Amino acid sequence: MKISTLLNDSETEALHFSPESLRSLDVALPNAELSHHSSEQSFLEDSAQTDIVVTWRFRELWYPHFPRLKRIYTPAAGHDWIESDPLDRVPIIYGTFHGSILAESLLGALLFMNRRMPAMIKNHRERKWDRNLQSRTKLIKDQTVLILGYGNIARFCKSALEPLVKQIIGVRQKADGDGVFRNTELPTLLPNADHVVLLLPGTTSNDRFMNDERLSLMKPGSYIYNFGRGNALLAQDLLPAMKHLGGAFLDVTEEEPLPTKSALWSHENIFITPHSSCMCDNYRDLYISELIDHLAR
Amino acid sequence: MKISTLLNDSETEALHFSPESLRSLDVALPNAELSHHSSEQSFLEDSAQTDIVVTWRFRELWYPHFPRLKRIYTPAAGHDWIESDPLDRVPIIYGTFHGSILAESLLGALLFMNRRMPAMIKNHRERKWDRNLQSRTKLIKDQTVLILGYGNIARFCKSALEPLVKQIIGVRQKADGDGVFRNTELPTLLPNADHVVLLLPGTTSNDRFMNDERLSLMKPGSYIYNFGRGNALLAQDLLPAMKHLGGAFLDVTEEEPLPTKSALWSHENIFITPHSSCMCDNYRDLYISELIDHLAR
Repeated sequence: MKISTLLNDSETEALHFSPESLRSLDVALPNAELSHHSSEQSFLEDSAQTDIVVTWRFRELWYPHFPRLKRIYTPAAGHDWIESDPLDRVPIIYGTFHGSILAESLLGALLFMNRRMPAMIKNHRERKWDRNLQSRTKLIKDQTVLILGYGNIARFCKSALEPLVKQIIGVRQKADGDGVFRNTELPTLLPNADHVVLLLPGTTSNDRFMNDERLSLMKPGSYIYNFGRGNALLAQDLLPAMKHLGGAFLDVTEEEPLPTKSALWSHENIFITPHSSCMCDNYRDLYISELIDHLAR
Repeated sequence: MKISTLLNDSETEALHFSPESLRSLDVALPNAELSHHSSEQSFLEDSAQTDIVVTWRFRELWYPHFPRLKRIYTPAAGHDWIESDPLDRVPIIYGTFHGSILAESLLGALLFMNRRMPAMIKNHRERKWDRNLQSRTKLIKDQTVLILGYGNIARFCKSALEPLVKQIIGVRQKADGDGVFRNTELPTLLPNADHVVLLLPGTTSNDRFMNDERLSLMKPGSYIYNFGRGNALLAQDLLPAMKHLGGAFLDVTEEEPLPTKSALWSHENIFITPHSSCMCDNYRDLYISELIDHLAR
């Protein structure tokens, strides 16, 4: 079995699988023939013999060059970078290990917003000692978190958050009667949540999912978080809604990198991180370990 | 039974028990004679008849004016504002409800430092989209937290943190063989902790508890948090140690308010909050509820 990898990333250190980081894969699969590529050219030169691909990116026009290809594995959770097989022959297996990383980023963001840290940061910069800033904050243990886009990653977040909050409510497009609600129930769920977390995939059907109408249903002073994809929540809808929201924490935005001219950067109750909620040193090892489990089956 | 309260606080909203916030006390104790004072003068005018005092502050020279006084209750966890009875007649009962509030502040601080938020804040201010900033951060679930000053409040913190970190180790002056370590074991504990949390009381015996020697024993890149009292960790010891530490989160400082000229304000890996880790809207209700439990006995 020949496995070709194309897992380099020139821009983002956490996502760059160097030959050293792939070594445990070689060790775990002694009977496989592994080729680790760092250029598309060498990757494509190997295409005729390749049975399995592990990659960050795959283009539709490459499929005809991979006659033996059985599966494509990718660390990505989002479906943004692997184009589908036009003949629908080759399944794509996405990473599912992100949950444990995202859970920590999300919990950090919830406590950050709940304790009014954007305003605290401003005081810190101005060397201002205001003991009243957090006087009206409420304990998160009495609060309700609503997660929209309740899938595999959200379940990890739920486990991490569950001991710390009053209630976590999951919502997704198709609910299967497992305690998860459907999108159609949002009009009754949104007004009762203290924190609304978006973990929605970047499909066009989710464009402006949190539109002005849904934002207006959110409880006054409540917080919104986007850890899914930027198309679900646009600045044009969010900024007017900030009149009644307590704050927004955005790890993803409509355009990335977020242009320096965006008004989102300067709003006092909005905090932005650069699509980095899963960036950490553990990223590569967690994926390699998940991949070995899959390939060993 | 006559109960006199002196629980106003002109400066800090969360600590100001207004007549409305004390109403549930009146309701719960229909047989007691309650007087709620907002000035020391009127409080002292009542002294001859008072059996129980609930207060933020009590001076040594007041004791002779309270011949019937049986107990002093105070919401404070720290022993800073109630002077002891020189005749050692009147016990002081400190609040113990702070744990559930502090646990949330501490967990927020741990995740904040662990995800390099001080550097993220700087990028945010400069509208810089750097996806590599957090690439070398590690998951907190694999990390060890050392809590120095392991008492009642620390036990609450341990319960909240336990599901999220690898290990929590408690240390106090006198360990009672309940899995808590003694201060003498710090030389072996400090080099192995990823996060060192100070919850030490402000006694003079804790002056410079984290001196340069102990700071130098901390693991390179590890984090220190002070949520106890400022005398345990001085700027003159911390600032040189920042060469090898990952960061410091200080809720308390040697002098409070921290003077604007302090070099602590400007260090890129130090974040400061204004002795506010327990400031929240729940503060008064949590104390009243604890006090009712005590007084109803």
